[in-house]
Amino acid sequence: MSSYGVTLLSGGLDSTTVTSMAMTQVDHLSSITFHYGQTHSKEVECAKRIADFLQLNHKLMDISFLGEIAWYSALTNPERFPIPSGEHDSDIGFGVPITYVPLRNTIFLSLAAAYLESSILKAIEIDGENQNMIQAKIFMAPNAIDYSGYPDCRPEFYEKAVDTLNEGSKISQSYGIDFQVETPIITMSKAEIARLAVQIKAPIHLTWSCYQGMDNPCGTCDSCILRAKGFREAGIKDPALME
Amino acid sequence: MSSYGVTLLSGGLDSTTVTSMAMTQVDHLSSITFHYGQTHSKEVECAKRIADFLQLNHKLMDISFLGEIAWYSALTNPERFPIPSGEHDSDIGFGVPITYVPLRNTIFLSLAAAYLESSILKAIEIDGENQNMIQAKIFMAPNAIDYSGYPDCRPEFYEKAVDTLNEGSKISQSYGIDFQVETPIITMSKAEIARLAVQIKAPIHLTWSCYQGMDNPCGTCDSCILRAKGFREAGIKDPALME
Repeated sequence: MSSYGVTLLSGGLDSTTVTSMAMTQVDHLSSITFHYGQTHSKEVECAKRIADFLQLNHKLMDISFLGEIAWYSALTNPERFPIPSGEHDSDIGFGVPITYVPLRNTIFLSLAAAYLESSILKAIEIDGENQNMIQAKIFMAPNAIDYSGYPDCRPEFYEKAVDTLNEGSKISQSYGIDFQVETPIITMSKAEIARLAVQIKAPIHLTWSCYQGMDNPCGTCDSCILRAKGFREAGIKDPALME
Repeated sequence: MSSYGVTLLSGGLDSTTVTSMAMTQVDHLSSITFHYGQTHSKEVECAKRIADFLQLNHKLMDISFLGEIAWYSALTNPERFPIPSGEHDSDIGFGVPITYVPLRNTIFLSLAAAYLESSILKAIEIDGENQNMIQAKIFMAPNAIDYSGYPDCRPEFYEKAVDTLNEGSKISQSYGIDFQVETPIITMSKAEIARLAVQIKAPIHLTWSCYQGMDNPCGTCDSCILRAKGFREAGIKDPALME
C-alpha cells in the first residue's frame, strides 16, 4: 500500500504530537498550517520550524477570509466580540464559549481533504498509480477533554464528517479510496499528550502554546496554564521552557 | 418562527432560480457569491445585479486560495490541467470529469453554514431572540441531472453533509436548531428549471451562464448549449437573449 496523508499543524503541542505520529504512518505526508485572524506570526514560525525539523513538506494557507465568514467569534473578531473576563477556553461545563469559531473544524477538514484528494487524483490520473494500493489519511489534533465545550472536537462529529467526505469525493466514489480521519489524542488528557509526545520524540521543544506572541511564553494565559498543568501531572519538564 | 437563511448565488440560471425560491421561504436571507480562479468578473457582476434587483443582502467572498488547496482541477488550475477536447461538463456516463473541484460543495456548504451560524448566534446571544423560534436554511443549486458525474451534486451527499453540520455546530448542539439544506432543483432537467424560473418570476434576464466573459453569451460553449437546449425544450424564449 502507498499512503497519502495530510496533517494539520498549528505549531502547538497537540498538533505537533499528532504530526509526529503521522510521520510513522504515512508514506507521502504534507503538513498544512492555516493562518487567520487569531494566529500570530510566532505560531506560524514555530509550525514552519517544526516542519523543517521533521523534514516534512509544509504548506502555509492564508485563510484570513475566515473572519468574514465565521464572524461571530472572539477568535476571528476579537475586537467585536471580546472574551468576557472569567470565560476560559479550558472551562468545562459552561457550554460552548465565545471562542468557538462557527464550523471551524468542518471547514479545516474539508480544506485538508481537498488538498489530499488533489494529490491522490494526480497520483492516479497523471502518474498512473494503482488506485487499489492507495490510502488517504487526514490527521487532526482535536481534544474533547480540555475543550469539551466545542461540538466539533467530539468523536461523534468526526464519524459523521468522514461519511460526508466519502460521499462527496471523487477518490471515494470513483476509485473506492475512503478518507480515514485520524484524531489520535481526542480523548487524552494534557498529561497523557505530554507523555506521548516525549515517548515518540515529537519536537515539542519547538512548539508554541502561549496566546501571546512574545519571545517567551507568558506563563499566565489559559493555554500556558493548561500546558504547565499537563507537564506537571505527567512528571515531565516542558522542553520548550528549557531552551 | 423566524427563519434565517443563506443562498449561494453564482449569477447563473440555476442559483438565481433557487435564490428566488429562497426569498419566499426565509425571513432573513443573505446571498453569497464565491469568487475564485474560474469565475470571470462578468458572472460576479451579474450576481451583484441579481441581488440588487431582488433587494437582497449580498456578500462577495474572494476564495482564490481554493486553487491552491483544491489544486487538481481544470476549473481552479486551467493552465496546469486543461480540459481535454471532447470532455464536456454535460457529458453523462463518462465518470467524474477533470472540471471536478475536489470537495468543492463540501467547502462551499461549510462556509455558507459558518456564515449562517454566525448570524443566528448573534441573534440569540446578542439580540436576545428566542432560540426555539429560529430556523436555519441553506439554499444551494446543485443538479444531479446535467452534471451527473459530480459526487457532490447528488442528494445522498447532502443527506450526509447536513448530519455533519448539525453534529459539529453550536446552534444545533447547544440551541437545538438544525440546519436545513435545501437543494430544490437537484433532480430537475434544464427545461424544468427554465419553466420554474419563469413561473416564479426569477430575474433570469440578468443571469449569465456562458463560460466566456464577453459582452454577449458566445452561444457555442457547453454551458450556452445546455441552457439553449433547456429553454427550447421548455418552449420558452431565453429572457437573457432578449435584452
